[in-house]
Formats: sequence, C-alpha cells, structure tokens
Amino acid sequence: RRVMCTVTLTLFCAIICCSLTEKAPNISSPNIIIMLMDDMGWGDLGVFGQPSKETPNLDEMAAQGMLLPNFYTANPLCSPSRAALLSGRLPVRNGFYTTNAHARNAYTPQEIVGGISKDEILLPQMLKKKGYVSKIVGKWHLGHRPQYLPLENGFDEWFGAPNCHFGPYNSSVRPNIPVYNNSEMVGRYYEEFKIDRKTGESNLTQMYLQEGLDFILRQTEAHRPFFLYWAADATHAPVYASKRFLGQSQRGRYGDAVMELDYSVGQILSLLQNLGVENNTFVFFTSDNGAALTSGPNESGSNGPFLCGKETTFEGGMREPAIAWWPGHIKEGTVSFQLANVMDLFTTGLALAGISPPDDRTLDGLDLTPVLLKLKLTNACMPIFYYRGNELMAVRLGQYKAHYWTWSNSWEEFKSGINFCPGQEVPGVTTHEQKEHTMQPIIFHLGRDPGEKFPIRVTTKEYQDVLSRISLVVESHKKTLVPGIPQLNMCDVAVMNWAPAGCEKLGKCLKVPKSGPWKCEWPH
Amino acid sequence: RRVMCTVTLTLFCAIICCSLTEKAPNISSPNIIIMLMDDMGWGDLGVFGQPSKETPNLDEMAAQGMLLPNFYTANPLCSPSRAALLSGRLPVRNGFYTTNAHARNAYTPQEIVGGISKDEILLPQMLKKKGYVSKIVGKWHLGHRPQYLPLENGFDEWFGAPNCHFGPYNSSVRPNIPVYNNSEMVGRYYEEFKIDRKTGESNLTQMYLQEGLDFILRQTEAHRPFFLYWAADATHAPVYASKRFLGQSQRGRYGDAVMELDYSVGQILSLLQNLGVENNTFVFFTSDNGAALTSGPNESGSNGPFLCGKETTFEGGMREPAIAWWPGHIKEGTVSFQLANVMDLFTTGLALAGISPPDDRTLDGLDLTPVLLKLKLTNACMPIFYYRGNELMAVRLGQYKAHYWTWSNSWEEFKSGINFCPGQEVPGVTTHEQKEHTMQPIIFHLGRDPGEKFPIRVTTKEYQDVLSRISLVVESHKKTLVPGIPQLNMCDVAVMNWAPAGCEKLGKCLKVPKSGPWKCEWPH
Repeated sequence: RRVMCTVTLTLFCAIICCSLTEKAPNISSPNIIIMLMDDMGWGDLGVFGQPSKETPNLDEMAAQGMLLPNFYTANPLCSPSRAALLSGRLPVRNGFYTTNAHARNAYTPQEIVGGISKDEILLPQMLKKKGYVSKIVGKWHLGHRPQYLPLENGFDEWFGAPNCHFGPYNSSVRPNIPVYNNSEMVGRYYEEFKIDRKTGESNLTQMYLQEGLDFILRQTEAHRPFFLYWAADATHAPVYASKRFLGQSQRGRYGDAVMELDYSVGQILSLLQNLGVENNTFVFFTSDNGAALTSGPNESGSNGPFLCGKETTFEGGMREPAIAWWPGHIKEGTVSFQLANVMDLFTTGLALAGISPPDDRTLDGLDLTPVLLKLKLTNACMPIFYYRGNELMAVRLGQYKAHYWTWSNSWEEFKSGINFCPGQEVPGVTTHEQKEHTMQPIIFHLGRDPGEKFPIRVTTKEYQDVLSRISLVVESHKKTLVPGIPQLNMCDVAVMNWAPAGCEKLGKCLKVPKSGPWKCEWPH
Repeated sequence: RRVMCTVTLTLFCAIICCSLTEKAPNISSPNIIIMLMDDMGWGDLGVFGQPSKETPNLDEMAAQGMLLPNFYTANPLCSPSRAALLSGRLPVRNGFYTTNAHARNAYTPQEIVGGISKDEILLPQMLKKKGYVSKIVGKWHLGHRPQYLPLENGFDEWFGAPNCHFGPYNSSVRPNIPVYNNSEMVGRYYEEFKIDRKTGESNLTQMYLQEGLDFILRQTEAHRPFFLYWAADATHAPVYASKRFLGQSQRGRYGDAVMELDYSVGQILSLLQNLGVENNTFVFFTSDNGAALTSGPNESGSNGPFLCGKETTFEGGMREPAIAWWPGHIKEGTVSFQLANVMDLFTTGLALAGISPPDDRTLDGLDLTPVLLKLKLTNACMPIFYYRGNELMAVRLGQYKAHYWTWSNSWEEFKSGINFCPGQEVPGVTTHEQKEHTMQPIIFHLGRDPGEKFPIRVTTKEYQDVLSRISLVVESHKKTLVPGIPQLNMCDVAVMNWAPAGCEKLGKCLKVPKSGPWKCEWPH
C-alpha cells in the first residue's frame, strides 16, 4: 500500500483519498468509551517502551486489542486538541486558535471569553440520533462560560471541571476552578476538592473512576447505548495521585499518577467484562498532547524516542499513545501502522453507531473501522497536519514529515528556564526563533529517524520526490481551508469562574468584577 | 527491597552483598544459548518501544519469558563487553582496556597485538566440567592471533570471524578479515563471504542461523548438553541483510537487519520447541553495547529514551535490551527490575549447569537464578560500573547514577562530524572534553529521569544521602581492584590477518610484513 501510494497515487493522492471512505460495518450501536489522558506522552506506557513498565492494565489492554504507534493529536495543546476530538475538525476550522500573534498555541484559561462555537456539532450531539446517553468525566476545556459547558453541547451528564486544576488562588484576585456535577457546581478545587500541592495527594482520579463506573453500570442496566468520555487529568501539572498510589512508582509523583490511571483503566475494562458488555463496547485510550517536558522530571512524562514535547509540532508534541479495545471485534495483539488522529474518533464513532456524518462541513477525521475491524490500512495518502495557531508548521505524509516552520520556544523563555526540548537540540530544527522553511522545508523520514535528528539532504532525489508529493497535499489543503472564527483571542477578568451556576446553593458565589477585555497573550 | 537497601543497608551495603549469593537450583545442566547482538540498542525491539514494532519473534519471546529493562553491558564497546561476558569479569580486570591515554575505549582491530589472556577462564571452559559442547557462531572479537582464537579458549566449534566486518581492503595494505570454520579459515569477507557495501546485501545472518540450528540439532540428537554463543553482527556497520529482508523494514537497512535477526531468533526458538528441548534450554538475548548513533540514521539503531549511545557511559551506551526465556522455568510475561549485567551470564550459566565458580579470582557477575526462577530481586546493592578504559566514569546504585567523569567525544571529532549524542545535549553532562566531577559527582535518578537530563541539585538532602552511599561503594571497589595487564595497548601491522591458519589450503595466504609495533591510538 505504501508503495502504491508512492508510485501510482503521486499526483492524485489528494483527490482520490476522499472517495475511499468505506461503509460502516454491520454492528448495531456499540457503547463507546474514549479515555483521554492529559499531557501523557507516547513513552509513558510499558507497551510503548517506558523502562519502569508500570502500566500492566494498559499493556494488557494492548495485548487484548490494537496498538496504534502512528496516532496523533490535532494540536500540541489541550483545548484545541479536545475541541478537535469532539468536533472531528482541525482547530483552525472549529475556531480553537488565536490570531493575536503568529503561530501561537492557545487554550482556555478562565479569563478566556470564547469557547466551542454553536456552529460546531460535537460527537455526543450526533450520537443522540441513535439514542446514546453521553457523559463526560473530568476535564472539559472547551470554554467555561455557561453556553459553552458540556450539557449545552450534547452531553447528558458531567462530573469534572471546565479548566485546568491550577491553583490554589486567592479568591479576591482569581477564583478557584469550580467542579461541576452536571449543570451546577458542587465545589471548587483546593476547597471542597482537595489537591495537596506539597504532597501531591488528591482523590480526584478515584472520584473520576467511580463516576465512570457508575455511569457504565446505570446505562448497562437501563439497556441504553452510551458514550463515556473519560478525561482524567492527574498527569497534568500539578500532578496528583491518591494516597495508596503516592510513592509507589519508580518514576516519582508523575509515575504514581500514571499507575493510578492505569489501575482505573483496568477497573473500567473489568467492569465491562463483569457486566458482559465487553463485546458491545468500543474503548479507545489516548492522550491530548505530548508530555510537558518543561515540567520535568518530577511532573513530566516521557515522549519515548521522539523530539521535544507539548507545545511543539515535533513528534514529541503530537504523537500519542493509542490503544483500541473491543473483544470479539478487534483482533487481539495487533499493531496497526495506520496514520491516525484524534479527529478520526469522531468519524469512527459515528460509523460504529451507524450514523451518517454531517455533510454540511469539512471533516478532518477518517473512518477507522476498516483498520480496527479488518486490519486494513485506509487512505494511505491522508496527511497529518501539525498546526500552531493558524500556521501549518509541518505535514506528515506516509513516512515523511516536512517542517515548513520550526520553533521550540522563544529565547526569552528559554533563558528564564522554560525549555520545551530539555536535553535535546537539533541544529536548525529545535529553533528558539520562529524560523520559516516554506521555500525549502526540512524533511525527515520518520521510519528511519523517528527522533527527527537527520534532515534529508535537499540535493537528493528522495528529497525532491517527497517534496513534490507533500507540496501538492499542502497546496490542496490550503486552497480549500476555510478557517473558523478564532475563539481564543479575547480575555476578560469578568468571565472568570466567579459565580458559576449552583454557586448560590453552596454560598460560593464571588463578586464579578467589571468587564475589561484584552487581547490574550500567547507567548508560545 | 529498595527501601530496605536505602534505610538499613546504607553503611553495610558493600560488605553484606557478597554473602547474599544463593544456592543453584536443582536443575541438571540445561542447554544454554546466549544470543548477543552487535550495536543493537535498547530501543530497537518492539517490546522496548521501537515505533516500527518489527520484532514479533523477540516480542513473543518476551511474552513467553522475562524482560529485564535494567540490564547492562560491562563496557560501551564490543571487545571489552564480549570479554566481560565470557570471563564474568570487568574489562579492567580481564585486561580488555588500554592505558595509552586517559579514559579511552579500546577494542581488537586486526592490528592489535593482544587478546584474551590465558589467565582468564571463559564460560565454555568451565562448562566442559559438566560435559557441555560449546560453539560460537559469529563475531569473536577477543583477539585474532592464533593463541587467542575460540578453539584455544574453550569452544569446541566456531563459525564466524575474529574481527569486525569492515572492508573491503586492498590486500597489499590490509588483508580482508578471514571467516573461520573451527580452527581454519574458509575464506574472507568481501571475497568468498560477500557483503555488498552499496546494496547492503549479504547472506551472513542466514549462514549464522543455519550454523546455529545445525549445532542445536546435532547436540540434541547426541543427547549432549550444549552452550551456543550466537553472536550475529548484521546490525554493526556496515549493516547488512539478505535479499528477502532488504527493503522490508520501515526503518531502512538497519531495520532490515533487525528483522532478519528477529526472524532468526524465531527460527531458533521454534527448533527448540520442535525438538521438545525448550524446557531444557535457557536462552538469553542481549546486545554488546548501545546503538552506534554516530552512524545514524541509516546504519544506526535506537537507544529509546536514553542519553547518547555506543562509546559513551551514558545510559544509551550501556543499557541493553534483554530477554530471558526458558519455558516451564521462567514464568511467562514477567518483568524484572533487577540491576543486571552481561557478566552475570557467566555466573548464572555456571549456576544453571551446577558448576562452582572459580574461587581464585574476583568475579563481577551475580547469580541471577533467584531472579529468573523465583522472581526475586537479588543483591539490591550490587552496583553497575561504567568504565571507559581503566577510568571509572560512573556508578549506578539502585535508581541512582553518579557520574565521576563525563565525556561524549572530543571537540576535534565533533567538528569533523562524529557525534556520539546526535540531537542530544545536556549542558555540563554530554561534554566534549573529559570533565572531572570526582569531588562533586553529577547524580541522576534513573527512575524519574531515565534520560539523564535533570541532575539532582547538590544542595538537597537527597543528593547528600545518595552520594554518601555511592561513595562507600566506589571506595570499596577501588580499594580492592587489581587491574589486569592491559591487552589493548600495542599494535603491529605484522599481526594482521595476512596468513591465518588454513590459508595455504585455499591459496589465500598473504605476505606478512615486517614487524613494527606502535602504541595504538584510541581517540574516543
């Protein structure tokens, strides 16, 4: 297939691929569970080469299912990645980007004004057509103002928080982040929901686990198909674990958090098996972006052999651990080299549920059912796009990756100790200024050189052949791209979580300050 | 156990450990197969995180046996590593080092005068006591002059070569390396034994496979216990593979070689199973040193998440892939975090065969039978020593590693394009000059920070505690160390493979030039 792609499809790649979509298999609406980790890296799982080998449940999940070593996120940062997963569209289309400065990662801190646009259709909204009940457990991150919250956007239930668990804050300057149960807050981080910054102790993962288990049990008993989006965030700084896991890992606190998440995955899969619904439940495990190396080593994961991490468009920033599990449907112990993406989970989820995808918009995801169920590779010419803001930094096509722009982080940040590539330095590649290579992209062969250390010489035939193929893909992509309205440009102190719904009942409403909007600053 | 080591044994570590050796299990002389790869890195196997996942047989071997993620070689270079494996002693004891310059890696090119000392006892010599028949297939590398060859040092059979397969050479300046069958040469590389430098094609791995299979079959039929030392070298530059494997890998020629070696391992294990002797055959797979990153990417392997590679005393240079396999005796699918070393294979081999180790010398290996057979950790305080030449560069004790000297390679080499740490740079650690830190070692926690990127701050209690423990170990080691006579100091053009035994029969003797000894130069 790779050969075919290279030889035959060279010119027609971009055109033909769109017509290759296969029909959905004849399966009636299995349950769907997406387990999305936070800042967990490709190299954090035993099965992906973590030396500590402390993820027996995830390794077992892979042994019972399919491993996808070429699975990507849509953005090296949390909010855009999550928006892409749920909408099936690139952040530049769904509006999860900024135009305040060139090639900047942006997300949804609590001063952000925007959120997920009403024009986007999220996976749980689509799944309703077949009677699915949907719950999100954990981090939302698609906007925290009332209209942007999960229950306004297709989910039936929610337990978790709209923003990151940073803090604790002095409530007069900045409120602590609220934790919601469905449409109302039930407390705040560092208040009712403790996170001990010193010891790293917090019971949140256990709560998320119980919420997930309870949901699965209830829906199974009610014989209703369900979608569980289990978005635990213990591996995002400040990294936490509950008492029984603290100190258990060889890797310190970060490893403790991984062990607790691994345990939780095991519990969820066991419940499915005990309920006898494992043959009717598709489970997918992945992460929102690469490990945050700048928090290393105590609060940072591992991107294995890949270059740099979170915030960057090198492999370490966007290649994700990925395991698909569905006993009786996905052959056990398989590995697929399919180039795939979190946005495929939208399209694939719809295909599994037997729902036609929306036809009024461009979708960026593939239907992976041929990959999962028939062990085929599909759409070999479908590229992976690596964006920072609205700048296309790099493109992967087959084994080749072309960098059009390179940037790790700025000299100013670097000198102050922030380093997105600690211990790594590839001259001309891990640049500390935004460097344009559009006239002569830096090209790597990711099979021979997964670490992006040895650029292919521009004078070679290989370089010229690859460049001509990738150029066509990029040209076609740029020509047809209609960017969404950027949602991550404006900030305002008045939109913070001062008085979330439900605060009155708890007596936890804070005074909302006067509105004073500003253009958010995005330094990376 | 780790805790016990830290708390209780702090002071007595170095003393107590020596008395912890356990008795050999009650098994009568199983066959022993050691598969030693050449320049293969920790990250080259699917089970150790290689993204291409192209080692199904080795991954299956791990699933049926035990994975050892904390397994080390005794030296970051081939000859000393191999001498240590077969003698059970550090190169600084067995003489496989040089004193020509400070902290230099040395090996056995064909101009070397020395080789394995008659004072060393090699594993096959010991195994004779219980009637083992021993064969080495592949690379010897313990000296190529007559007295140093395998059949003079305990092996009953040999098919392979004494030196690396560099070449082709102009026979008037330098002879091509001979290939031996037992005690006589049967041809030379690039002459009778083809290696196509352009295409990378060579049938050598297939020959080595057949030699191995044939030996196993013959000894099994004769009901004699055997030791097979299978030392294939296809992953050492110039990297080669046979025609059916060329172009098959996602990783280029290096990956092709790995695939052929993986296939060969599968064939050997299958034969054992087909012969019904798998329950009576202990098989261990590892490599002689880390991947040679300076040959990257086309002829270089991967050291996964570890720092630098071959020639260095960073983890990438000395942490090795390791799998133990013995159905019915080693529990399947296990992982042991035991700190272990190629030198343990000597001691463990003797224990398995029921032979007492020689008591007239210091042995550096552990008996790993409690680890393999009872899933225990043993001698938690046994350190890993990282030498370059006769300089102790670093020491690992438990999870901690202290660097007393750091050096990647010299500025002169670096500027000429030789780089032992491509794409990696840890300030003050991957130094291009030999840098002494004996007064204040650089210490890493390899659990939290396997990539050696974040030195522990010297002002912390953790640093001081660790330093005091490691200092005792180092002091004790240095105090009792009796270095062997260095074998790798002298070179001479007259000792090259001009006229190896058997050359007359083939008409392949070359004229031996006049002796002119010089002190070998070791730039790394």
